[in-house]
This record gives sequence, structure tokens and C-alpha cells, in this order.
Amino acid sequence: MPEDPPAPRGRKPARGEPVVDRALRLLAAFREKGDALSLGRLSERAGLPKATTLRLARRLAEWGALERTDDGDFVIGLRLLEVASLSPRGHGLREAVLPFMEDLHHATGQHVLLAVREDREAVLVERLSAHRAGTVLYRVGGRIPLHATGVGLVLLAHAPADLQEAVLDGELSLPDEPQDLTADELRRTLARVRRDGVAVASLRRPEAMSSVAAPIHDSRRAVVAALSVVAPTASVRAAALAPAVVAVARAASRALQRDGARTGPSPDRFDG
Amino acid sequence: MPEDPPAPRGRKPARGEPVVDRALRLLAAFREKGDALSLGRLSERAGLPKATTLRLARRLAEWGALERTDDGDFVIGLRLLEVASLSPRGHGLREAVLPFMEDLHHATGQHVLLAVREDREAVLVERLSAHRAGTVLYRVGGRIPLHATGVGLVLLAHAPADLQEAVLDGELSLPDEPQDLTADELRRTLARVRRDGVAVASLRRPEAMSSVAAPIHDSRRAVVAALSVVAPTASVRAAALAPAVVAVARAASRALQRDGARTGPSPDRFDG
Repeated sequence: MPEDPPAPRGRKPARGEPVVDRALRLLAAFREKGDALSLGRLSERAGLPKATTLRLARRLAEWGALERTDDGDFVIGLRLLEVASLSPRGHGLREAVLPFMEDLHHATGQHVLLAVREDREAVLVERLSAHRAGTVLYRVGGRIPLHATGVGLVLLAHAPADLQEAVLDGELSLPDEPQDLTADELRRTLARVRRDGVAVASLRRPEAMSSVAAPIHDSRRAVVAALSVVAPTASVRAAALAPAVVAVARAASRALQRDGARTGPSPDRFDG
Repeated sequence: MPEDPPAPRGRKPARGEPVVDRALRLLAAFREKGDALSLGRLSERAGLPKATTLRLARRLAEWGALERTDDGDFVIGLRLLEVASLSPRGHGLREAVLPFMEDLHHATGQHVLLAVREDREAVLVERLSAHRAGTVLYRVGGRIPLHATGVGLVLLAHAPADLQEAVLDGELSLPDEPQDLTADELRRTLARVRRDGVAVASLRRPEAMSSVAAPIHDSRRAVVAALSVVAPTASVRAAALAPAVVAVARAASRALQRDGARTGPSPDRFDG
């Protein structure tokens, strides 16, 4: 089947697909958790005229992709969560791995993260954090740099070679650190992660935290996700967490392989 | 500003909005967790010609709302999870309440559910279940009947009067029960839920389970969500769970009121 060429700029393309793109641009205008945008702010962020924005936003709201607050602002709607929950790489994976994350959380009392790779970044699919566990971490659905986090290093170490090279050639800054990582340092780190089956990342600010991460494999032995525990460096030695993280990631991998949960639909049952 | 009238059937309406509706219909074609649809199946479910389906599905895939598997099937994409995670009523609420759900899960060892009302149904926003806890419950993002579940009864008891009447006038069947609920029975149950601050629902099949649910209030004292513990009737008396569920729902309400988490954006921080 022939590929549709992308519509050149400034030409009005046939068949109206750009309307879809404009609608998607409205969704992409929401960036922060809980963002509530006025019509003006939404139109500004989406780069669309107000009239177009209102028309499309109303359509999206009718369907439930957006909702309106009492003040008339637009927010992301619950219906999107319902649809997103069908994503095999998001919630499908999460359902299979969550009980194991709870075990790890229970056993360590620390933050537990689950992430997958999306192009050159990691996306946080799940996070468990106790009230006691301090610092607020990345939010679920948020993006995480591959080269500077435990889960990111695991995912990068097992990414296709050309993607690794692209990341090694790119910007390798570390948050709140004066010096960037060098490509050679990162290359050595990735080799170590593959050899040891575990990645350790640390940061000093805003609080000294260490992250210990291990890969989760699907039934074809591909690394489909990474699991980590993140703890204050002062209270926990990273080396002490590694056996727990590695063991639980292996158990989660087996459950994922058994369920075929990455792609297989599973029946829903009634509960009281 | 004037309302856009809905486009009448069979007329080609101006300004292309129906393209957005068609795109949304593609998303709505996914129903089961992990659904992977061939082009043919997707076009059939969406009720759109194959060529239109392919064109729109490609647009959605380019943006990340859909993804393609190795077999060429379409699945819901991770990008939707990223956007959905910004929903104040979904993940915003979830982030505030999750630590309290973990407490309850930890203390009882049973399933813990968090749901919100969406028109005449409840939507499951979060669920914690241990490997040991048996029966698979509703999935996150799935819909639950208001009149037949613990969380549903709490949400219905505090819903606007006209919505309650609409539900009372509607179909009140109970899953796997020969007799429907009567409107009078349900009315009495709702009065009891409002008086006691707790709802109990039971079912006998596929396994005897009881659900004990309590409301979560926002800073305006509106009931914005319901929290429940679901346990096998054989092992746990519902009455024994009520104090824990009620106490934790109150604690979660306070946290939600403090955070303003239902609508307020919160800054993301870096983790290791």
C-alpha cells in the first residue's frame, strides 16, 4: 500500500487529516500533572486560532478526551485514561509487574519505579512511593533521560546499537552537575550494566539519592522494561539493594512470560 | 459564543470536525486490555472504510496514540498513557491517594480499589492486588456498575439527585443473580450508605466476595472518589474491614484537600 506523503507546509492538503493533527496538538498542549488551561492558554500553546481551538476542544470534550472545570478551563479527561489503560506497553506490562513492585516496595520501604523506552527517552509506567519515602519523583507517564537514571541506563544498555550511538553522540548533561558525562564513560557504564545485569545511578542534588535498576525480559528474551529502587544515599547502600532488585526483576520477567501479558488480552471479571 | 450544532447524518459538514470524530472512533475500537487489531478488524469495529482507517491510524501512530506490532497490527500507544497521566480526575487523584491505598493493602492483604463516577458508571482509577489475593478484579480504566459494587454505591449515594433517579429508573440487574435489585431496595441502601458513611456489596459467583467502600471528599466536601477493600467473604467479615476503610478514606481526603491535588499542577523533581 502506498505511503501518504506528509503534507507540505502552507498547502492545504486533501482529506482533512491535519484536523486530526490539530486535535492531537491540543492534547499535547497539556504538560504538567493536573494542567487546567483556559481557552486562550490552550490556543496559545497549541499554536491555533481561538475559534479553531474552541471547536476542536469541544469535540474532544464531547468524547471525553478533555473535560471542563467549573471555571470553564479545559483539563485532560478520564476517558483518555480508560483508552490508555489498554496499551500493552503501558498498563498491560504494569498489571503483570505491579505485584512484584509491591513486594520490592514492601521489602525495602523505598521508591520503586517501572519504565520502558520510548525512542531516546524512558517513560515511567509505574511508581510506588510511601508517604515516608521523601522526595517526590518523576510522575507516571513522565519522561526520564536514558543516560542519567538507573532505569534509563538499563534500557539504553539493551537498546539497538544505532540508538545507543545516537544517544552517545548527543547531549550527556547530568542534572545539577557541572560536568557532562563523556561518551567514553557512558560506553563503559553500559558495558558494565550488560555484564552485571544491574545499573546504579546517583545524584547529589536536590538530595543524595541512588537508583538500582535491573532489566525485565519478555518471552523472546528482549528487554522490554526496567525496574528500580530509588533510595536516599545516606540511608541505603546501593550494593545492598542490588540482589533484591535483580531477583524481583527476574521473578517479574517470568510472570510476564507466563502471562504473555505484553500483548495478550485478558478477560475481566466482576468484583463486589 | 454559539454552540456548534451536531452534524446531521448523511450531510458532509463544514470544517472537517468529523475527521476528529472518526479518529476518536478508531481509539474507541480498542476494548480489551492489550487489544491488537489488524487493519481489517479496526476498520470493521470503527465502522470506517479500510482506506480511511489506514490513513487515520497512520496519523495516530505517527503521533504515538497508536503503535504497530511486529505483525502490523495496531495497539494503543504509550503516548496516550503519557497524556492521560495528566488527567486531574485520574492520575492526579491517584497520586494523592495511592500511599493510603498501600497502607490499606499492607494492613489487610486484600484488593484495594479507587474509583470515580463518570456519568452513570464508575471508572476504576487504581487497583492494588497482591499475587496471593486471588480473583482478578476489574482493570484500571475499566467501568463498573454503580448499583452493584461497593465503590459504585458510595458514588451513587452522593451523586446529584437526577442522576440517582435515572439509575433507579434503569436496569438494576445483579451479575449472576436470578433476581434484579428493586428500586426501593436500592433507595434504602443508598440512604444507609449516606447515614453510615460506608457501603457493603457482596456477590456469590464466581467466588463469594465482599466489598467495603467509603467516600473520599475534596476541599469543598464533595465526594470525588470512593475507596474500597474487596476480600473473599469466607476469610474476612465485611464489618471487620469497615473501620480501616473509613479511617483511611478520611486520611486520604485530608491529604487530597491539603495537596489541592485534584486540580493543582505539581512540580516534577529529578530522581536517580
